[in-house]
Amino acid sequence: MVNIAVLGYGIVGSGVIEVLNVNGDSISRRCGQDINVKYVLDLRDFPGDPVQDKIVHDYSIILNDPEIKIIVEVMGGVEPAFTFVREAIMKGKSVCTSNKELVAKHGAELLELSKSMNVNFLFEASVGGGIPIIRPLNQSLTADEIEEITGILNGTTNYILSKMSNDGADFDTVLKEAQARGYAERNPQADVEGYDACRKIAILSSLAFGMQVDFEDIYTEGITKITDADIKYAKAIGASIKLLGSSRKEQDSVYAMVAPMMIKPNHPLFSVNDVFNGIFVRGNVIGDVMFYGSGAGKLPTASAVVADVVDAAKHIGANIMTLWSSKKLRLSDIKYAKHKFFVRVAGNSDEIKEKVALLFGHVEEVSVPEIDGEYAFITMKMDEETYRKKEAELGNVVSMIRVMF
Amino acid sequence: MVNIAVLGYGIVGSGVIEVLNVNGDSISRRCGQDINVKYVLDLRDFPGDPVQDKIVHDYSIILNDPEIKIIVEVMGGVEPAFTFVREAIMKGKSVCTSNKELVAKHGAELLELSKSMNVNFLFEASVGGGIPIIRPLNQSLTADEIEEITGILNGTTNYILSKMSNDGADFDTVLKEAQARGYAERNPQADVEGYDACRKIAILSSLAFGMQVDFEDIYTEGITKITDADIKYAKAIGASIKLLGSSRKEQDSVYAMVAPMMIKPNHPLFSVNDVFNGIFVRGNVIGDVMFYGSGAGKLPTASAVVADVVDAAKHIGANIMTLWSSKKLRLSDIKYAKHKFFVRVAGNSDEIKEKVALLFGHVEEVSVPEIDGEYAFITMKMDEETYRKKEAELGNVVSMIRVMF
Repeated sequence: MVNIAVLGYGIVGSGVIEVLNVNGDSISRRCGQDINVKYVLDLRDFPGDPVQDKIVHDYSIILNDPEIKIIVEVMGGVEPAFTFVREAIMKGKSVCTSNKELVAKHGAELLELSKSMNVNFLFEASVGGGIPIIRPLNQSLTADEIEEITGILNGTTNYILSKMSNDGADFDTVLKEAQARGYAERNPQADVEGYDACRKIAILSSLAFGMQVDFEDIYTEGITKITDADIKYAKAIGASIKLLGSSRKEQDSVYAMVAPMMIKPNHPLFSVNDVFNGIFVRGNVIGDVMFYGSGAGKLPTASAVVADVVDAAKHIGANIMTLWSSKKLRLSDIKYAKHKFFVRVAGNSDEIKEKVALLFGHVEEVSVPEIDGEYAFITMKMDEETYRKKEAELGNVVSMIRVMF
Repeated sequence: MVNIAVLGYGIVGSGVIEVLNVNGDSISRRCGQDINVKYVLDLRDFPGDPVQDKIVHDYSIILNDPEIKIIVEVMGGVEPAFTFVREAIMKGKSVCTSNKELVAKHGAELLELSKSMNVNFLFEASVGGGIPIIRPLNQSLTADEIEEITGILNGTTNYILSKMSNDGADFDTVLKEAQARGYAERNPQADVEGYDACRKIAILSSLAFGMQVDFEDIYTEGITKITDADIKYAKAIGASIKLLGSSRKEQDSVYAMVAPMMIKPNHPLFSVNDVFNGIFVRGNVIGDVMFYGSGAGKLPTASAVVADVVDAAKHIGANIMTLWSSKKLRLSDIKYAKHKFFVRVAGNSDEIKEKVALLFGHVEEVSVPEIDGEYAFITMKMDEETYRKKEAELGNVVSMIRVMF
């Protein structure tokens, strides 16, 4: 039997307890031993809850109990999570976490520390909720050099974009409805501005390239400027607008960004809709693979956390190698990153058309019958800097969305 | 440095050598040591090939070399692969294989043997080519009870069905073209009759349920009877016909089958086209996940084999637990399995309509403008036995395809 402690009895924490209760038998079988939750750390009490007699308010009880071999950190946020996790590892305990802020900020350091202490720091649930992606990157794609990793990494924004596309509704209406249904937080900034996806692509990029990618360095654009008109144009050309976190290696440069992009049905992420997440990986020998599933939610996330607990229990006394050095990976300036751009310009279509032809050369025109008073087109592939210069000369640009086809 | 031997210098074997050469540096880093191919076993010689001086014709040289810690078996077929692999494990060597026939037939036995010898028997490449699915099932979905696993497991048939759907061509024409392009074997029976998919779903089911599922027990139907007319009907209702290998747990019963099925865009496998494979898994806590990628091909398959070699090298002296007991799982008779059925009946539409209504009650009619002289419909959900009885009474059934929506 292995004793564990759960830090935080919120949504994910109570999910972890539920998964261990519901699937206890099969988990014990796969683990080779029983998993016993000895403590749950929370500031609150939970009178009447089966977990009540395990609740402690003082972390030092957990930290100083040598019976506790594995700690589940599901509190979220960098502090006090970081201090708690660090102390746990120093005490020779393995840690399993769902905390993307913690992992994006301190992943490399905590991995190095856990290696030196011969314990494990596991974080499958920090990206893609239940979707197995961290372990496959570490243990399955080991024969490949990763060339690209691109994901729909935030369920809330994917739900909003899917709903805007299906219902023809505008952003604000859909956001309000998503908040009412519990799919979006009352303060939705972290989701809709792309900050959540940014931390996740930082974690994935660090693992894919084996070096520290700082999330602060990643160019990040959210979905708040996407309108129902943009979506109508996308539909007119059989495309879909998704918020993608993407990093890509080109020769010696690595570009990373989070931004809304247009993709077509030939892209494996095209059919990832609603609250689902999908992570596309291109390796130099495996080719294209994609992982799909629930990117959030109590039980899917808890499933990933508990799978980490099983792995940690099977590896007591043995460090699972994870290549993520704290050496900083210098991302290339995205002004050199090349894309096609979908552009809408306000004004008389015929006049703009000439100006666009002069500035951009050959473009693909896009039109939607019910929208007039503007001209829309897709450029050839060019770098961001070149595009920005031409955009400034053109003027009156209503919207620009990068195109991935 | 770890020394390995490769059994078989065919497509996958030469792919393994290529992957180790191309990505040698990053593989060594992830492995923690260099991987050295000391021998390649093949009946042929390869004059001029860089591998020539490693070629041996006598397996006992490999078997009796204590320096060889890992054997890559990529010969295919049950014998002599089984004898070779068994002997290797008995000698304390780990084995990595891409051989689905071997794994489907002797997987449980070889896993038990390798556990007793404290070595590893790994077979990521035996299902889904490069797609990480075996390791995720064993190590990532450990918190779940698997309720269903359904896959597009054969690239050849998926290519044929995609091509029939895109070009409106018939089966024979597309098969010939696929053979000319090297996507289908000259003897395509194993693919088009579903035998290949059957072995793969047997392996996945054994791992999902932890017990031996014999492929001989799985009801298997190929795609040779699918016509362009069937595909026209599918399109008319926005569906797609896919060859699916599927096993599903319902209370205490497990049903497994390989058969063409209609699915709609809301199914994650709908957009898995051409030679790609996809594997959908439903767990009781994780919900729905899907894994997508190249199901075959020299380099993707070799990528999975080499990832196994890395794992084996990292686990020398430690057995990676895999739950697949040799205890036989008794599949339930598919006559009790419930589906909807798409049915085409020859004859005068109005007369049949009445008969169908009497026999099947409420049905969903399907029609295609350019097809007449028949009546097509989708039944309500019913078990196979009930359907078969009604089909016999109805008579003149041109085709039947199970429906998964």
